[in-house]
Amino acid sequence: MIRVNLDSDEVPDRWYNIVPDLPEKLPPAIHPGTREPLKPEEWEGLFPKALVRQELSEERYIRIPEEVREALITIGRPSPLYRARRLEKALGTPARIYFKREDLSPAGSHKPNTAIAQAYYNMAEGVENLTTETGAGQWGSALSSACALYGLKCTVFMVRSSYDSKPYRKFVMKMFGADVYASPSNVTEFGRKVNREDPTCSGSLGIAISEAVEMAVKGEKTKYALGSVLNHVMLHQTVIGLEAQKQLEKIGEKPDTLIACVGGGSNFAGFTFPFIHDKQKGKNDAKFIAVEPQSVPSLTGMKSGESKYDYDFGDTAGMTPMLKMHSLGHDFMPRVIHAGGLRYHGMSPLVSLLYKNNVIEAEALHQAETFAAGKLFAETEGIIAAPESCHAIASAINHARAAKKANEEKVIVFNLSGHGLLDLQNYADMLKF
Amino acid sequence: MIRVNLDSDEVPDRWYNIVPDLPEKLPPAIHPGTREPLKPEEWEGLFPKALVRQELSEERYIRIPEEVREALITIGRPSPLYRARRLEKALGTPARIYFKREDLSPAGSHKPNTAIAQAYYNMAEGVENLTTETGAGQWGSALSSACALYGLKCTVFMVRSSYDSKPYRKFVMKMFGADVYASPSNVTEFGRKVNREDPTCSGSLGIAISEAVEMAVKGEKTKYALGSVLNHVMLHQTVIGLEAQKQLEKIGEKPDTLIACVGGGSNFAGFTFPFIHDKQKGKNDAKFIAVEPQSVPSLTGMKSGESKYDYDFGDTAGMTPMLKMHSLGHDFMPRVIHAGGLRYHGMSPLVSLLYKNNVIEAEALHQAETFAAGKLFAETEGIIAAPESCHAIASAINHARAAKKANEEKVIVFNLSGHGLLDLQNYADMLKF
Repeated sequence: MIRVNLDSDEVPDRWYNIVPDLPEKLPPAIHPGTREPLKPEEWEGLFPKALVRQELSEERYIRIPEEVREALITIGRPSPLYRARRLEKALGTPARIYFKREDLSPAGSHKPNTAIAQAYYNMAEGVENLTTETGAGQWGSALSSACALYGLKCTVFMVRSSYDSKPYRKFVMKMFGADVYASPSNVTEFGRKVNREDPTCSGSLGIAISEAVEMAVKGEKTKYALGSVLNHVMLHQTVIGLEAQKQLEKIGEKPDTLIACVGGGSNFAGFTFPFIHDKQKGKNDAKFIAVEPQSVPSLTGMKSGESKYDYDFGDTAGMTPMLKMHSLGHDFMPRVIHAGGLRYHGMSPLVSLLYKNNVIEAEALHQAETFAAGKLFAETEGIIAAPESCHAIASAINHARAAKKANEEKVIVFNLSGHGLLDLQNYADMLKF
Repeated sequence: MIRVNLDSDEVPDRWYNIVPDLPEKLPPAIHPGTREPLKPEEWEGLFPKALVRQELSEERYIRIPEEVREALITIGRPSPLYRARRLEKALGTPARIYFKREDLSPAGSHKPNTAIAQAYYNMAEGVENLTTETGAGQWGSALSSACALYGLKCTVFMVRSSYDSKPYRKFVMKMFGADVYASPSNVTEFGRKVNREDPTCSGSLGIAISEAVEMAVKGEKTKYALGSVLNHVMLHQTVIGLEAQKQLEKIGEKPDTLIACVGGGSNFAGFTFPFIHDKQKGKNDAKFIAVEPQSVPSLTGMKSGESKYDYDFGDTAGMTPMLKMHSLGHDFMPRVIHAGGLRYHGMSPLVSLLYKNNVIEAEALHQAETFAAGKLFAETEGIIAAPESCHAIASAINHARAAKKANEEKVIVFNLSGHGLLDLQNYADMLKF
């Protein structure tokens, strides 16, 4: 068995919401001014009603609209699950390694899973423009393409360092008709302010979010879309784990270790949450491992004090609601590391709460190790993974080696969140091509 | 119905060889010196025995080795067939448009279908090094990754203009451990000769083939691999059409028009040959359309006299066997057009013979039209196609528009031979991003 497919009609018809199954109550988002829990109507300045309902929902399952399911099929869902036979052989491990292929979507990552849902609900409520930010460009590509699908205009603020170093990502967004600005830009008040204070500023996701939020708040029929962190984003991504559950069942495998990289947390959440629920029901006894870069240790930085679990803003200007999460501080200015999608200062409140309660574990890896793992993965499995996903691959390799040492037949499953075809310059830099 | 899948075990177990079903006998390859038909042992200087047998075979079906079938599953076969519902809607056509997705392989094109088979047979006969040329880089990527699979060393001569303008393609090959030289290079006698005569030469496929052949002939345990033109390459690509047949049958569709782009002819051959055989058996009454760039009119140039159907060399130095084919002349120096994969001077002898006998038709399109078609395809279907594949898309759009005018419910099927993620600079240049 090399690949486990599902039929088109096996695309999930409902999302899994982990909120009712959390070990403690999720602290609500609060208003930055009043510090009171944010009311639905306050959320609605930024998001359409349907998404606000999902953000605040305590229902375990939420129906996926038929139009969204169809669009998910269009982008290749259900995505296949592969066994990494040749990687196993190269490692000489008794472990069986599987990976879920989120790299096969037209945008090249898991991001369209929520982009499509968000564009759909905005369209349904009469919104005509969506604004957003993007780091590495994966989320911007996904939202641009989803907006093209539903006839929405899309404006993307792209972190300047990525805008300059990744022209192809910008071209992808333009192919789908989006407007793309390097952030800090001169089209928002906040962007102009940052540029005045530091004309050489290379940007951050926090700054880009502030710009996108400002434009959404000021614009007509304009809302904002976020590609990670929030509850409704985690919800939409659970199609990944729901499919992987069926696929592993189909071949009679029970996972021992589930691994995904974390920036804001969405691919990790989407992949693991359904399995966490399974564990609560006694259906598995798995470990759940979130892998982050050593230089952006929102979870693992708790020990050194670099990170805190507390209320913080999602953006730099302090315009967003405050969320209780693991955070390096909303003014955190990340080093220019190559996994642009993992450079965010904060972690999804849902993922944060699970980490605090030891439901999940975290590992931090140095990027040199992750690119070496990506090279081995390409040579053995033929796939060039995104630098973000290389964190999951490197961890899977480490766990497979540990299984070899212990002579244990572990079942290791990781989420291949995206491909690295537009990140080849990063590989070339790191591997000295 | 948006997507038609096949199961892994529906990967074809035999290739279809059109040779016994041709309207006239295929003129043999001849020796450039003696002008006598090339003997098997003369072919074997370049290729392993198994591939030479396939090159000369008159058997209708040839069994696919189990090891090759497994590798085909690894790279995503069977590939899905999609219906372009939203493109149809945008065109307001009564035609139903389907496309076969060869863009989903790790190398991003149909090329791995033959790269895997060729690397396998070379490995099986003890070859340790493969040399080849690449234009746009699709073939070089595919062969590099197939060589990694079977533990072979791979040396790629990449047309200098592509080498300079497409660094990402070069990085892909290096990811798989290949040696990549800009051609004309200084590592072969012929390359040095060309460089001496024209130090600014930007290269051509013909020159790169000469270099790769020279290195194969001189090297130990070294053979050469070609990504198009030859009979065994067309043979390996028929998995595309064999799968598409099953997929169309599954949904009860009979194709009226089958479209693919042509450079050397391999994706066209692989896609259409099984349907041409169906037509001979009365199972369809389809048209088969090969689409080429106006600036490289190996088929359509017959009218203007730019092209001839005669014996010619496959390479510039005249080191290869001579093939009877439509050719612009082996010293043809193509303009730097953006569809690098379609810049070859010659056409597969099999495709040529079918064109001469009016079994297939040809169209020539200007590249501006093809990029505009690619943009519309991206906006409607969400997929960024290779500039080569945009030729097929543009033709499909033209045929769908004609069906609208005639109010005919045509079934149009085209082969999406590759994705354009590494060709975004070309889109940006042409569409002025």
